[in-house]
Amino acid sequence: MPLLKSWVESANTPETAFPLNNLPYGVFSTEDGDLRCGVAIGNRIIDATGLEAAGILRADPNADVLDAPFWNDFMELGPDAWAAYRAALTAMLSEEASEETRDALTTYSVPMAEATLHMPFQVAEYTDFYAGKNHATNVGTMFRGAENALPPNWLSIPIGYNGRASSVVVSGTPVRRPWGQLKAPDADLPVFAPCKRFDLELEMGAIVGQPSEGPVTVAEADAMIFGYVLLNDWSARDVQAWEYQPLGPFQAKATATTVSPWIVTKAALEPFRVPTPERERPLLAYLEEPGPMLYDIDLSVSLTPEGNAATTIARTNMREMYYSAAQQLAHHTTSGCPMRVGDLLGSGTISGPTKESRGSLLELSWGGKEPVALDSGESRSFLEDGDTLTLHGAARGDGFQIGFGNCEGQILPALEDPYAR
Amino acid sequence: MPLLKSWVESANTPETAFPLNNLPYGVFSTEDGDLRCGVAIGNRIIDATGLEAAGILRADPNADVLDAPFWNDFMELGPDAWAAYRAALTAMLSEEASEETRDALTTYSVPMAEATLHMPFQVAEYTDFYAGKNHATNVGTMFRGAENALPPNWLSIPIGYNGRASSVVVSGTPVRRPWGQLKAPDADLPVFAPCKRFDLELEMGAIVGQPSEGPVTVAEADAMIFGYVLLNDWSARDVQAWEYQPLGPFQAKATATTVSPWIVTKAALEPFRVPTPERERPLLAYLEEPGPMLYDIDLSVSLTPEGNAATTIARTNMREMYYSAAQQLAHHTTSGCPMRVGDLLGSGTISGPTKESRGSLLELSWGGKEPVALDSGESRSFLEDGDTLTLHGAARGDGFQIGFGNCEGQILPALEDPYAR
Repeated sequence: MPLLKSWVESANTPETAFPLNNLPYGVFSTEDGDLRCGVAIGNRIIDATGLEAAGILRADPNADVLDAPFWNDFMELGPDAWAAYRAALTAMLSEEASEETRDALTTYSVPMAEATLHMPFQVAEYTDFYAGKNHATNVGTMFRGAENALPPNWLSIPIGYNGRASSVVVSGTPVRRPWGQLKAPDADLPVFAPCKRFDLELEMGAIVGQPSEGPVTVAEADAMIFGYVLLNDWSARDVQAWEYQPLGPFQAKATATTVSPWIVTKAALEPFRVPTPERERPLLAYLEEPGPMLYDIDLSVSLTPEGNAATTIARTNMREMYYSAAQQLAHHTTSGCPMRVGDLLGSGTISGPTKESRGSLLELSWGGKEPVALDSGESRSFLEDGDTLTLHGAARGDGFQIGFGNCEGQILPALEDPYAR
Repeated sequence: MPLLKSWVESANTPETAFPLNNLPYGVFSTEDGDLRCGVAIGNRIIDATGLEAAGILRADPNADVLDAPFWNDFMELGPDAWAAYRAALTAMLSEEASEETRDALTTYSVPMAEATLHMPFQVAEYTDFYAGKNHATNVGTMFRGAENALPPNWLSIPIGYNGRASSVVVSGTPVRRPWGQLKAPDADLPVFAPCKRFDLELEMGAIVGQPSEGPVTVAEADAMIFGYVLLNDWSARDVQAWEYQPLGPFQAKATATTVSPWIVTKAALEPFRVPTPERERPLLAYLEEPGPMLYDIDLSVSLTPEGNAATTIARTNMREMYYSAAQQLAHHTTSGCPMRVGDLLGSGTISGPTKESRGSLLELSWGGKEPVALDSGESRSFLEDGDTLTLHGAARGDGFQIGFGNCEGQILPALEDPYAR
């Protein structure tokens, strides 16, 4: 697919994350502090809330859906409205747009450099999956040995667990090292102390844009998905190791989950669809895919020690997932579980087959046994205070890329006394 | 504590669940279908939304907090406002109230028999715990053998997992038997089929009425709790057995969770506080309780086959919990996990030490090996289509009881084809 040319010149470069082909949805504020819905194009943000209020571009002729600091009301309108809005916006920003249109959109836009970005949607509920086979194999090998690495159900079920929506934050939010119950392997009893093995997990997040009541097929699930973000599922490995049996991770995953600030729509990613890998065990019919449901999106992780330069510690691709978000969502509904607009599905850590493509420090340092060398001369087994972690993602077209904006967070030191008031 | 006498005569009997000592909060509608906040007293419901609009009884002088079909905005006001509102309502309903007050409250009330009850609050997020030691021991024995019954962390951590808020329903909502992945012990591969081992779990639900950002102490956690409901955590045991390793229960618990319709406030339960059991292993300091944090509440479960009489299949008491809701909530915040108004915490199944006091059919029928005899002559290993399950709860005072209203649901047969449209 070629670059779609825009009259916004900064959107026509191979370097921008936000060409006309992308048009991702976010929430921004400028000096006045007012939160507004916006669309990224090159180095500018179109004020979608302003365009709606002025009657220049409306998603719904009868109701304001962008007069709130989130895209949930817009998502409620459904796929036809999503497509019509995107088509109208594409036309208004294309190089064929009239002078009048250009003037209007220039008025209702701000330089991205002057904006602060906020959570682009209200998270209804957050579910995290475990859909990367390399990740599951690596972690399973470390926790249970190579022979029991992949749980017996893994090739049949897109394994998932419910996470904590209240802990989801937008890129840029600092993340404080948590306290938790830790038990050393040779200790009889646990202690309550700051986490020593704080980690990242490189994931994609799928945003559910339409509700469901009963079970849905994979095709129906795909149609319900509004878009994708990058997602870092911060993980306290020492807390997790002691707490996770028998009911799964709980406080180990509840400190924070960071998402990138722009919702890249499923429409923008359409040209980059790729199939899930060949099945090693036949899937049950309800999980069969009617077409390619993954996306060819390059992903990477960089770690920046405080006051030092960044090192890219991992490079992988979304196509390494074994189950697609549509399959995960279909499985999520099998019990009759109602899904809601704004539900967020984390893909699970996306690790590739090589050592350099592992999406967590747990895997990169093999449980701390093989610390990762940084360009600064330091090394890391797990995250240290002051470290900034950044996830990058890009689907690469012919002379352009579809980017997500960074998914970033800096580690603050643990509180000295979490109960001091 | 003695009965507080009300001018509402039906509130002064030993049989009523709703004496003046109780005053639980719910949401109701009558013929016009309009949902309103209400307070139960004897066989009547006081229209709290109407009293607020009329200026007769306001929780906040400056804002309407009861003009919505849930008590969340009221909870936001905090413990001082909760106490002041309860005191005012108690005075207005006491036998010492003036004629004028009686007339006003009679005008703003309806017979309970003419009302339909709805969810009393919006569930922000739902967490389910595993805090009954007898239950954990029973289930552990069946799943992992008597020697590994209690997981090593159980005596140190109030084990919990995040559930699905969208699946929480009010008493009276029918529950459809789910489909799911099932794998027979001797089968190589799973099948997708209707659940064959559908079960109940007798629990209490604690409702978080105040938010938190960082870790909170047990005392602070107790102060954040607004009230309690009865809770049935419907469970698909065959789905759970195949899916739960390594990340915990997911679709097995997502069909529905039923709660009783009235929020019984912490204030109403205050006279019934009892301590948690003696510790077999010392708790970490952050879990120590400053006082008694459980409640002496008699609990029972009845099973009613379609067209037959009810059988009480279990009797137990909330004091059988090993960890209190305050301890669970304190643990929930250790990671820095933000808690929100409307968060619901399930206690975990509350089983007593005897066979007759077990809070699930899994335990009562010992995994199906010892079917439970019903008064109708039938027996049950797990729930059958048409069965109605009812949880009852009562704290017993001197000549009165604090009740919750029934927590009830009937099992509908599984869909023939869950994907037929």
